[in-house]
Amino acid sequence: MRLRIDLAYDGTGFSGWAKQPELPSVQARLENALARAFRIPESDVRTVVAGRTDSGVHATGQVCHVDVSDELMAPLRGDGFAETATRRLRGALGKSSAIRLIAVTEAPEGFDARFSPLRRRYEYRIADGRSTKDPRHSNHTLWIDESLDGEAMNQLGQSLTGLHDFASFCRQREGATTIRTLEQHSWQRDDDGVLIGTVVADAFCHSMVRSLVGAAVAVGKGAASVDEIVKLRDALERTSVWKTMPAHGLTLVEVEYPPAAELAARAEKTRGTRELPSD
Amino acid sequence: MRLRIDLAYDGTGFSGWAKQPELPSVQARLENALARAFRIPESDVRTVVAGRTDSGVHATGQVCHVDVSDELMAPLRGDGFAETATRRLRGALGKSSAIRLIAVTEAPEGFDARFSPLRRRYEYRIADGRSTKDPRHSNHTLWIDESLDGEAMNQLGQSLTGLHDFASFCRQREGATTIRTLEQHSWQRDDDGVLIGTVVADAFCHSMVRSLVGAAVAVGKGAASVDEIVKLRDALERTSVWKTMPAHGLTLVEVEYPPAAELAARAEKTRGTRELPSD
Repeated sequence: MRLRIDLAYDGTGFSGWAKQPELPSVQARLENALARAFRIPESDVRTVVAGRTDSGVHATGQVCHVDVSDELMAPLRGDGFAETATRRLRGALGKSSAIRLIAVTEAPEGFDARFSPLRRRYEYRIADGRSTKDPRHSNHTLWIDESLDGEAMNQLGQSLTGLHDFASFCRQREGATTIRTLEQHSWQRDDDGVLIGTVVADAFCHSMVRSLVGAAVAVGKGAASVDEIVKLRDALERTSVWKTMPAHGLTLVEVEYPPAAELAARAEKTRGTRELPSD
Repeated sequence: MRLRIDLAYDGTGFSGWAKQPELPSVQARLENALARAFRIPESDVRTVVAGRTDSGVHATGQVCHVDVSDELMAPLRGDGFAETATRRLRGALGKSSAIRLIAVTEAPEGFDARFSPLRRRYEYRIADGRSTKDPRHSNHTLWIDESLDGEAMNQLGQSLTGLHDFASFCRQREGATTIRTLEQHSWQRDDDGVLIGTVVADAFCHSMVRSLVGAAVAVGKGAASVDEIVKLRDALERTSVWKTMPAHGLTLVEVEYPPAAELAARAEKTRGTRELPSD
């Protein structure tokens, strides 16, 4: 039996999603809670995640899956399975508000948290010279002194979308493709004047969102033109014209899956496209 | 010369506004920065604040004043006084985002941060059983499992407004009046379903906002009726029907002052009304 787990977290206190020896990670906390909630030996709990967030990155719509034996789940079976499982895992996660368990459900046939998604949506928050800087939000908002040209950032976003090789925005990994479909990259100001960047793609290679934001900030400051950035993208080489922006401004807000009937086919297709997929 | 200082802070790491030996406070941090920014001996810096926030309470619209000698300010005088003074005090406050200096300006004649205000506006955030619980906002939002009846909370709010003795909502202090004009106490849900309480009065006695919120929560849970709470208010005695709600959900969002010409008269009136005023 496969469980789908939807969760949110404040990444501030974590060294990212992925388990690492001696460091606090969301995965380690969750797997420990799963083991206690469902009485599984901890070494048997292996979660597979949709978005492997870096140290300090937040999530409001993270998804992972874990396989559990039918026998262990048998006592929870029945009409209220999701409610019972959710309540039990919430209990095991404890009172801390750093991780919020949204729901545990039985995953449909063919569901794979990492390979089935149609798209992933990230948000990046920047309070610039024109924004109200709210200290209560500084855990998930980048503060900069300069005023940015949101219009120009939007233009860049539009110019970068589509199916492209994003090698110049990715930390290269041997054998991994850097071809992605960037579906959306747009900027708008909220009521506080905070610039909210939305970046959507089928998948992202490592540090890609924060590099795209860095390119937008370079354009927003007037340090680079849209044409320049597009040329640098097509040069497929790393550049110092933009920086990988700080982690704390970034949040994974949504992972979108196809209808149940198409899950397995989608996973098959994704595996085929990316030799060594990274998300 | 009197300076008006507008500032915002995340109260999480502070033992409140007021200076206390050995404990981190907003006032101590600010006075230390003022001394360094304007080269005043620290023992001569005495700030007077509009809202003496408790430990863990936040502010996005706090106001205080400080008196400084004309000689010390002489080098900064000129057209850009406010900009220069603001930049210098920001520099002295350093890189931390826990306190955000909004502005330093020369206060108009008769301005008193504590006694001149017409009204103070607080916000209290509750994510209940019907809200999305966002861990990125858990520093300034109370989480509760139950679902609250926002309509009933609103009705209570309306029933409590007006000029009344709020003794049953206040921690009593000898010689201090507990008569206040509660101008607004209302509740509405934001896009995440988070209940936002707005509480406005000319001034508040100690723990009054958090007690009013406690009464609203008791009504929202169905544990008390609006009539019951109104009777308990008129009984002028402390009660266990409601609790003083946790500090971290509370933010001082605005302090409103009259036009410059009425500042001194307003301060005079306030001093006359409250024998030992507390805000």
